[in-house]
Amino acid sequence: MNWKVEIKTMLKKSILDPQGQAVESGLDALGYKNVSDVNVGKHMELVVEDVESKAEVESQIEEMCERLLANPVIEDYTFQVEEMEG
Amino acid sequence: MNWKVEIKTMLKKSILDPQGQAVESGLDALGYKNVSDVNVGKHMELVVEDVESKAEVESQIEEMCERLLANPVIEDYTFQVEEMEG
Repeated sequence: MNWKVEIKTMLKKSILDPQGQAVESGLDALGYKNVSDVNVGKHMELVVEDVESKAEVESQIEEMCERLLANPVIEDYTFQVEEMEG
Repeated sequence: MNWKVEIKTMLKKSILDPQGQAVESGLDALGYKNVSDVNVGKHMELVVEDVESKAEVESQIEEMCERLLANPVIEDYTFQVEEMEG
């Protein structure tokens, strides 16, 4: 079975987010004064092929996040796994 | 009312995604041979304050995406708006 995976990584709340601050300043400069708490992270989509169980996919994704996709020291990650049709 | 907004931007399907390719190569080098179609985009979270209707927030976010948050020439964006409690 093939699986569609979406992964979101965001900086932990305690870590300074300069990209979020830059976006917030940019929005402010454009006149959007009522926007706050901007945080910017990554969104990844990928396909995992030939795995039989969702639990196995989830364990593989968790390992991939810890080793490569996220930096677990400064980032939190969440992911969703969905079976692909066909 | 205050609103929590989540925005996702991804490169359009027709645009080369070098970051996605780099992640796919990295995963392959780590032994994850069954991963394909890796795409990397941005995930943004922000708070919009003092707007009365959801439709108004959505129209403001759409404008913000077109002007600053996304590059509509090469990126697609989607967003979700949710009322904040309290």
